[in-house]
Amino acid sequence: MPSPRFAFGRSEDAAYADTMRATLSEFIATALFVFAAEGSILSLGKLYTDTSTPGGLVVVAIAHALALSVAVAVAFNISGGHVNPAVTLGALVGGRVSLVRAIFYWVAQLLGAVVAALLLRVATGGMRPLGFSVASGVSVWNALLLEIVMTFGLVYTVYATAIDPKRGHLGTIAPLAIGFIVGANILAGGPFDGAAMNPARVFGPALVSGRWTSHWVYWVGPFIGAALAGLTYEFLVIPEETTPARTHQPLAPEDY
Amino acid sequence: MPSPRFAFGRSEDAAYADTMRATLSEFIATALFVFAAEGSILSLGKLYTDTSTPGGLVVVAIAHALALSVAVAVAFNISGGHVNPAVTLGALVGGRVSLVRAIFYWVAQLLGAVVAALLLRVATGGMRPLGFSVASGVSVWNALLLEIVMTFGLVYTVYATAIDPKRGHLGTIAPLAIGFIVGANILAGGPFDGAAMNPARVFGPALVSGRWTSHWVYWVGPFIGAALAGLTYEFLVIPEETTPARTHQPLAPEDY
Amino acid sequence: MPSPRFAFGRSEDAAYADTMRATLSEFIATALFVFAAEGSILSLGKLYTDTSTPGGLVVVAIAHALALSVAVAVAFNISGGHVNPAVTLGALVGGRVSLVRAIFYWVAQLLGAVVAALLLRVATGGMRPLGFSVASGVSVWNALLLEIVMTFGLVYTVYATAIDPKRGHLGTIAPLAIGFIVGANILAGGPFDGAAMNPARVFGPALVSGRWTSHWVYWVGPFIGAALAGLTYEFLVIPEETTPARTHQPLAPEDY
Amino acid sequence: MPSPRFAFGRSEDAAYADTMRATLSEFIATALFVFAAEGSILSLGKLYTDTSTPGGLVVVAIAHALALSVAVAVAFNISGGHVNPAVTLGALVGGRVSLVRAIFYWVAQLLGAVVAALLLRVATGGMRPLGFSVASGVSVWNALLLEIVMTFGLVYTVYATAIDPKRGHLGTIAPLAIGFIVGANILAGGPFDGAAMNPARVFGPALVSGRWTSHWVYWVGPFIGAALAGLTYEFLVIPEETTPARTHQPLAPEDY
Repeated sequence: MPSPRFAFGRSEDAAYADTMRATLSEFIATALFVFAAEGSILSLGKLYTDTSTPGGLVVVAIAHALALSVAVAVAFNISGGHVNPAVTLGALVGGRVSLVRAIFYWVAQLLGAVVAALLLRVATGGMRPLGFSVASGVSVWNALLLEIVMTFGLVYTVYATAIDPKRGHLGTIAPLAIGFIVGANILAGGPFDGAAMNPARVFGPALVSGRWTSHWVYWVGPFIGAALAGLTYEFLVIPEETTPARTHQPLAPEDY
Repeated sequence: MPSPRFAFGRSEDAAYADTMRATLSEFIATALFVFAAEGSILSLGKLYTDTSTPGGLVVVAIAHALALSVAVAVAFNISGGHVNPAVTLGALVGGRVSLVRAIFYWVAQLLGAVVAALLLRVATGGMRPLGFSVASGVSVWNALLLEIVMTFGLVYTVYATAIDPKRGHLGTIAPLAIGFIVGANILAGGPFDGAAMNPARVFGPALVSGRWTSHWVYWVGPFIGAALAGLTYEFLVIPEETTPARTHQPLAPEDY
Repeated sequence: MPSPRFAFGRSEDAAYADTMRATLSEFIATALFVFAAEGSILSLGKLYTDTSTPGGLVVVAIAHALALSVAVAVAFNISGGHVNPAVTLGALVGGRVSLVRAIFYWVAQLLGAVVAALLLRVATGGMRPLGFSVASGVSVWNALLLEIVMTFGLVYTVYATAIDPKRGHLGTIAPLAIGFIVGANILAGGPFDGAAMNPARVFGPALVSGRWTSHWVYWVGPFIGAALAGLTYEFLVIPEETTPARTHQPLAPEDY
Repeated sequence: MPSPRFAFGRSEDAAYADTMRATLSEFIATALFVFAAEGSILSLGKLYTDTSTPGGLVVVAIAHALALSVAVAVAFNISGGHVNPAVTLGALVGGRVSLVRAIFYWVAQLLGAVVAALLLRVATGGMRPLGFSVASGVSVWNALLLEIVMTFGLVYTVYATAIDPKRGHLGTIAPLAIGFIVGANILAGGPFDGAAMNPARVFGPALVSGRWTSHWVYWVGPFIGAALAGLTYEFLVIPEETTPARTHQPLAPEDY
């Protein structure tokens, strides 16, 4: 990449083409993620079992972890690999994406999730997506708190590994880290409220199946968590250019 | 690698040796993949269980994910790490591999899969490979759509992480991403049609076991999905040299 | 990072801000880890099962492996990614962190674990964390030896992949290696004593649940193992600057 | 690493210290691997279950995959990360390690495995390691063939990702690939003969438990497979300096 990132004389047309390409990238990557993620739940339905066994929980958590890692990877260089309206909001509050671009991303993410859910419904011969719901014995306020905390962790991870200008070689494994935190959080929160951390992941199956119970929880929770994480990382954690960490120097250029 | 990639005066003999080496690489890598992948299904048979439990599904999905990651890795620098006739087709429609080389690859991939299936049959004392079939309650058209969608995701991943000239550091985890999307898709599509996304993976066990039911689905589906993905990525997504993404700049050289 | 790591004239204020940022980073990363790790055990409780089945063991081990990989990654560049008082002790005995900074880290790690356990208790509507205990048929001396050996492995891994000044490209996958060794050790030691290898991981849930049986084992064992690993690596393994390994040269700069 | 790898005037003492350091590294890494690997089997015994369920198979395969990835990583820069006498043999036949060094490695690997098995026996209050055996219905010749084929895959992976001088950025994920192929092969071959691919892995538990049935299979099979892989890769696959692959150029320096 010897060329400067922002060539002089860059026309508005080029910027528009660029945004369209990024929007397409978000659309495809989100569809790819939701297809495998929601598909893993239908898959358990086809086996006449559900997610309420350790084996079922492992199936769902691994499917999400692997599919999200890949979705972030394939969109990483084109659109930043958000594939999640909450991540886009987190990037927005930290000033890492413009409002116009954020709106394009949100539309693309929701559309991708809907298309994935529709493809699943057709390809399985009409199985209704299950989507997300709050487990019995869990209040919506519990679920809201869970979504806030878990999405905070996810968006904090996105900032530390994919956005931080000093992330260095960490950027290479950013897609894995982002997929892994979602997998881990599903193993922890899945039996309580499904552990969405992603409004698009919830919206697509909800629209295709017509199940909207407690739907707001999966928008408000992730958005609060994402905004908190974006603000925390952007204003408290990102190191100053002039004050590198003085621990065992994990990023000295000569070591990498 | 200080030497130029295309030395002047490179003789045809060298090019021929190069193609032969790449073909051998595809042969071995595909055999390595199919051995562990189909082996994991025989393994469940040996345990008197099958893939229709969450635990069995996890065994098969993880075996495919790990083995394919490795197969892509070992062939990455020699042949590009296709190990899949559909991936080779996707590279062909995007102009990333010549037709002659593609034909060599296809023969090597099919041969590798057959040798792996034969070795499994001998080493297990004669167990017949199971291979792929469409589950009851699933039509061949459903299966065809599943294979198209899932292979689209796989080949799109190959393009974004291993072929895109601007993939940058993403190339380091390309073998993992390619293995992971197959693992995730098996967790989603496995109980419906086996989730092959790879004609060679299906052909080897089919030939050795003599089971050919709905075999065409596992060629036509992956080939359609791969061609669509190759065309989409090559002509819609690959960024222009002069218009880098304007998000949070995941690839600025000074960050890596 | 073209600027020198230790700028001349760096003020004490900057050093203080740096330490505070690193301490915040340890706090958040440890909370993120303990939330998913302890959460996976509550999750099994919600499913009316426990860790004493292969499926339950897999849930807990994978949750720890994924969450710790991410926790180390998000704190890697800011604080070194310890998220574990034993790791901080190991770095201390090897002279890789100052005593003052170590004390800040220890407080942050314990606080992060407590906050995570509290959040879990509230978000699950009051479920008591289970934390760690020695299984029946296992003596505390067995458990102590297990914690020593397993933490030795963990801290040795931290040294080899994240601290060793000659770690080279290995640093890129250091967070994965550190998460993976904990996951592997849980699969081996989990049914015997829980396989903590991390006093903060044990302390947070213990404080919130009020269960303190054999608590000392999970401090003394990890601290002994960590100190042994730090001394071993620092004084026996770290290669001299002038005597690079003469094997198949895995790190020649021209290869990378 | 700006210093030349082979400093002029390097004394014999330095070379000796270097070999001793590498030998220590192999000893510790092999112990770390065998502890978690064999430990995962004792762990199932503690849960009153065994490896003959899908869940048990997943426990064992994941423990091996994770622990071997880490063992290779921690020894990668010091000793090359063999942790397996068969890998050392494969490197020997390809001329990548000297005979003297190979002998040091073999002793260290066997000693590490024995120490790990002893530590497990003490820490579990006397549980006898199970080690490896050929399943009923499987002949020793089947097992021999399985070990040959699976070890071929393992050592071929070591060559392609860790030894090949043109491995490039692939070296970064070499420890993962090496762990993954063993995990995948265990999912395929575990129920038939345990899927050892590593004489040290078998020897340590055998010595500590006194179970030696069919022990020779786990030396002869891996050694034949490793030698075949070493010769194949070294003499057929390693690309000439002057004829880089002409596929989609996965390693162009400007991309990385």
